Parts: sequence; structure tokens; C-alpha cells
Amino acid sequence: MARAGRLPGETVTIPAAMTIPSRPMNFNPGPAALPRAVLERCRDELLDFGGTGLSVMEHSHRGAAYERAHHATTARLRALLDIPDGHGDAGYDILYVQGGASQQFAVVPLNLLPPGGRASHVVTGAWGERAIAEARAVAATAGGGAPRVVASTVPAPGDERTLRRLPRPGEARSEGGDAYLHLTTNETIDGVQFATAPGATMPDLGPAPVVADMSSDIAWRRVDLRQFGLIYAGAQKNLGPSGVTVVIIRRDLVEAGRSDIPTIFQYRTFARHDSLYNTPPTFAIYLMGLVLEWIEELGGLDAIEARNRAKAGAIYGVIDAFPGFYRCPVESGSRSLMNVTFRLPTPGAEARFLDEAMAHGMTGLQGHRSVGGVRASLYNAVEPAWADALAALMRDHAAKHG
Amino acid sequence: MARAGRLPGETVTIPAAMTIPSRPMNFNPGPAALPRAVLERCRDELLDFGGTGLSVMEHSHRGAAYERAHHATTARLRALLDIPDGHGDAGYDILYVQGGASQQFAVVPLNLLPPGGRASHVVTGAWGERAIAEARAVAATAGGGAPRVVASTVPAPGDERTLRRLPRPGEARSEGGDAYLHLTTNETIDGVQFATAPGATMPDLGPAPVVADMSSDIAWRRVDLRQFGLIYAGAQKNLGPSGVTVVIIRRDLVEAGRSDIPTIFQYRTFARHDSLYNTPPTFAIYLMGLVLEWIEELGGLDAIEARNRAKAGAIYGVIDAFPGFYRCPVESGSRSLMNVTFRLPTPGAEARFLDEAMAHGMTGLQGHRSVGGVRASLYNAVEPAWADALAALMRDHAAKHG
Repeated sequence: MARAGRLPGETVTIPAAMTIPSRPMNFNPGPAALPRAVLERCRDELLDFGGTGLSVMEHSHRGAAYERAHHATTARLRALLDIPDGHGDAGYDILYVQGGASQQFAVVPLNLLPPGGRASHVVTGAWGERAIAEARAVAATAGGGAPRVVASTVPAPGDERTLRRLPRPGEARSEGGDAYLHLTTNETIDGVQFATAPGATMPDLGPAPVVADMSSDIAWRRVDLRQFGLIYAGAQKNLGPSGVTVVIIRRDLVEAGRSDIPTIFQYRTFARHDSLYNTPPTFAIYLMGLVLEWIEELGGLDAIEARNRAKAGAIYGVIDAFPGFYRCPVESGSRSLMNVTFRLPTPGAEARFLDEAMAHGMTGLQGHRSVGGVRASLYNAVEPAWADALAALMRDHAAKHG
Repeated sequence: MARAGRLPGETVTIPAAMTIPSRPMNFNPGPAALPRAVLERCRDELLDFGGTGLSVMEHSHRGAAYERAHHATTARLRALLDIPDGHGDAGYDILYVQGGASQQFAVVPLNLLPPGGRASHVVTGAWGERAIAEARAVAATAGGGAPRVVASTVPAPGDERTLRRLPRPGEARSEGGDAYLHLTTNETIDGVQFATAPGATMPDLGPAPVVADMSSDIAWRRVDLRQFGLIYAGAQKNLGPSGVTVVIIRRDLVEAGRSDIPTIFQYRTFARHDSLYNTPPTFAIYLMGLVLEWIEELGGLDAIEARNRAKAGAIYGVIDAFPGFYRCPVESGSRSLMNVTFRLPTPGAEARFLDEAMAHGMTGLQGHRSVGGVRASLYNAVEPAWADALAALMRDHAAKHG
């Protein structure tokens, strides 16, 4: 099996299709791969959670057995992500909500953009475009203030030549009086990610609290959360199954949120009730707890970051080693380590590559239907050996067809 | 083991605590018991869904394997509940949304109560009160019309003597021009349920489309859905785990809904995209499909209705056989077959009873914390033998302490 960090041109042997184990190498963009050890544990205790004789799904969310799992997941998130626990602007609440990041596109402005308020949006891809569209609908129907685009780096439709990119320094800044600045830290379809260099922090984004969609950017490395006022993340990339969304929100913003909107949309409802105001998605929160435990056992965020960097490095290494055959549509400083997007010379060549990958037991590599091409999603539970195998296949394929 | 349909006064032997199997008899109010056969199948295929080598949780919601499960669940719901499939007002869409019934309290008026519109609410318990409170917040902040209470049967706080009940005939009617009439067909906390007599239909509720919270009333018997314009139901009572909510909505109401609210809150978004507009809670929808298959194998809704009637009959039979000891706080024609609520002479007597039930392997019998007392939730997956064992324990307990 090939290794990460190989030199360009080094010869590697790709495994024959027949030796691929029956478990596919899963590069799905989300819902995505889950750790094998987590699935095995879930299976083993599915009919008897914690010695209760009941499945975790059969426990009341008001009962001691589930509540232990619920609060354990929260404690693990707080410890692993180093989420500050102080008062006011020195602490953050951890909320479990439903509806995915797509629902947060509307719920964020419902809470934080009161009548007369204003929000700045930075748009680096398709998800950022959806987010501002929903904020506009909230402004139009819920009496909230208006959102505006302060920076968009999305090429015009049909523009294939312009590389996708992050904003240039100083290009994306909030202004005094903005309620918040919204951005998407990793665009899964476009393959654009903020601050991926080792130790990098977010650029200067101006004075307003930063609200970040981190669905595909959470928990793959250590991040100083004090750079953000609010982050939200659907669990189904790096944290668990679909069906639960994590919101991490500065406590002063919880309190400042609108209190005239429906109770179920107010962040304070979830903060005050530890996300047990109404029935939460108990199984998804339980399973997220198991994934967090698995990350701890791997060595925590530093260990998983090294693992994730090696995976992305292996794929980008091959792309850059064969510039006449593979092409990444993203500027090199803006490339995502979670979703590596690349093109081959023709759609036919892309289809042939995807067929060959499938024959080698690799699944989920099609680019998003809106853009085409190839996309390798490399979330936490993607095994380094899978990324190595993909890199080896890419080399072999380029040598044969390039 | 005791049988259902026992005569008052008949002697039965309750099982000794030590002979109770390690799997508790689960009377939880939701999340509730799931069929053992469903849990076993879920366990057995947890790491390999449909021969794919991946867990169902690891599949993309855009992939063929998950989509088959998704559409199979919908086809099963349509067949089992006999959901009409015609155009306009002769057909209903089946939607999977998130956030529970509590979110629908706000989403229904967001969609169906435009500026200048008006909705009538019938309130028979705590959930109906929450529903109208959220509708009022929508009216206040989203420019929608006002909701009003046309009938409330909730006793004043602290009024212990007045029995809970359904509205009297003619007491709860919409008026011409109402956008809809909202009610809660089963109140889980108060134990009040509409139309429980065999073959009963809903009372005359006036000309407006009826919107019904059927979270705890769906799929336990055959119902003519054409009595309703929209029903919604959290899955965690009769259908599956928490984390998915089923909406069944007449197609003309989908199209008539507001289109200026955020996309993620519009029913038409879910209808047009088969609930795959954004990532659905895939595992919960898959598991609901397994529960529906289990109902089919039991013999469908007629079989499960007979089973459910026998369970409730066993418990109410004991309550009525010992009127000096057990007391149901609901009028006899309004009693819920899903949530049997009853009181003992004193809080101390209730605590002693709950302790004894626990010692006999019965769990989840505490009344809701807002009202106290005892509550036996008897959803689809509660085994008839458990209800029989509870009835037997109640007889024994009354004989000993009454």
C-alpha cells in the first residue's frame, strides 16, 4: 500500500481490484464515512445501552440513561474543541438543533438580525450563496434587517477559466454597526477553505462578530474559537450521522437574540434547556459522542490534524505532479483539505477515471452534480490508507492515459 | 402471564420480580419502545446496508442505496396509511422534516397563515397550548395573520376536580374564511384523544381545512386522512426513533403556501425535492421504514389496532374496577388509548406504586412532570404482554393497598 508524503515521480504499486476488501473506500461528501470502531460499538450495544436492556433509541430524553449520554457528548465537545466556558463574551453555549446547516441559514438572521440591523456576507461558493438567499427571505418576511454581500469570489456561471479562491487580504470586512459577518469556512462543492496552513488563523474580517458555517470544517484540527461569535455545523461530515446540527454560540449573542420570534427558533431556548426543550435527535447525539471518543483515542485534534493533512497532501501531490492531466480549479492558497476537487482533460476522461476508481473499491468520488469533475472528501473517518490508494491510482491512471 | 379482556375481579397471578426478563417493559412516552425484531435487524445490518459494505449512515443521501430506502419508506407509508395520491385536493404529499412537532407549531402558520389570514385553534391540552403560542409569535414577527382559540377544554391551573375532555359537539368549529383549524388529536400529557371508538371519525369541525398534530396518534389504526388538510407527527411514538417528523399535506395546500418565507421552511421545497433538498436524517427515515415493515408483517393497521385496543382496555378495565383507588382524570368518552393517565389516592401512594412497577421491570410510568400521577404510554411497539403484566400488577396493588 502506498504512503502519504511520497515524492513526485516515485513508483508505487496500486492494489489490484480483486484485493480491495469488501468494505469500500468511502469518499462520500456527507453523509460520509464513520469510524469502523464506532459502528462496531454502536452495533454491539444497539439492543442494550449502558446495561439498561433498552436501545439508546428507546430511552426517554428525560431519563437518566439518555441524559448521561447527552451531557457526555457536550462535555467531550467542550474539551476536545477547547470551547471557552466563561460568562458573556468569554463563554460559548453548545446547542444541538435540527434541520441542518440549511436551516441555520434562516435561523441565524431570525435571531441575530433585528429590524434595522445589517449583516455582511462573504461568499466563496455555493453554500454561501444559499445562506444569503435565506437571510434575504428572513429580512423580507420577518421584519429583520437586510444582509449584503461585502465580498464574493464566485466566478460567473460558465466561467471555467477563473480559479476559485478566498478573498484577498482586506477584501472581506464588516463595518461598524454590522450585527455580524457571515461566511462559509469550507465550501464543499467548490473546494475552497479558509486558513488551512498549519497554525493559520482567520484573516482580519472587521469589527463584527463572525458567524461561520463550519459544517465541513469542524473538529478536523485545533481552532481558536474565540475568532467566532457563532459557528454551526451539520454533524454528517466530521462528527457523526446526519440529523443533528451543532451550534456553538457566544453567550452574549444568545442573550442579545430576538425574543419575539417563535420559541423553537430562539437559541436561548436551546441554551436554557441544554437542548432538551423538546425531543432531540437522541441517536445522532449519542453516535456523535462515540465519534468524539474515537478522536480522543486517536490522540485528539493534533493527531487527527496530522492524519488529515497527510491525506490531502497525498492527493494534491499527485495533482501537482501531473499538471497536464489533472487540474485543480482552486488557487493553491485557497484549496480545501477536506474536499479535494480536480478535473481531467475531458468529461469522458473523468468518467473513465471514476469507473476505474469504482472498480478499485472507491466510492463517492463524483464531483457535485452542479459542477461535475472529481471530488475526494477526506473527512476525519476517511482512512489514510484510502487516500494513499487513491493517490496511487491517480498516478497510475495519469501514466497510462496522460 | 395475564390476558387482555379479563373480567373485573378475576384473579390473576402477577409475575414475580425475579422472573421479569432483563429487557424492561418499556412504557416511555417518547422516545418510546421499538419492536425488538426491528432493533435486531438494524443491528445485523448496521455495518453492511443492503450488501454495500457500508452502514446506512455512511451512504450519501444522493446515492442509489440510500434513495431506495428513502423511497421505500414513503411507499410503505402511502400504502399502509392509505394516503391518497391524486392531484390538487385529491392527493397528499409525504414530507420528512426535522425539529419535531414543536417546530411544526411555527412552520404551519409560516406556510399557511398569510398576512390577513386567520386560523382557529382547538386546545385540549398542553401541546395545543404550545402550538397556539408559537402561531402567535409567527403572527407577531412574520407578518402572518392571527390565530384565535375557538375552543379550549383545559381546566384552570390547580383545578383538580374538573375532568379533562374533548369539546362537546358543535363547540369547536372553524368559520368561513379561516385558513385552517388546528388541533392536537391526542394530548400525551393530559390523556385526551379524539375519535377513539371503533370506526369513529372526527367530529364536525367546520369548513376550514383541519391541521392536526398527530405525533402520538399516527399509524396505530386506520384513519380516513381526507378528514385532514395537513397532519404532522414526530416519529418517536408509533413510527420510529426521534429525529424525523412526518408531514402529510394536501397538495393544494402545498401550492397555496407562502413562497416569500425562507426556502427551508416552505413545504413546497420538501414536496418538490422528495425531502432531499438538503441532507435528511437518513438513519431515522431508514429505521421508520423497518418499523412500517414490521407493522405490515403483523397484519397491517387492522391488526395493530386490535392489539392497541386490547392493551388500553386492559389498563382502563382495572382503573374502572377499582374506582376508590384508581382515578382517571379524563371523561370516559375522551380517554386516550395511547396514553392512559391515572391517579392514586395520594402522591405517596403514587410513588409506592411506581416503585413497585419498577421492581417488576416496568419503566417509563411516571406521569409528565407538569402533572404528576401515573401514565402508561401504549404505542405500537409496546407488547400486549407488558400491558397485561401492568394490569395484573395494578389489580394486585389495589387489593393490597386499596
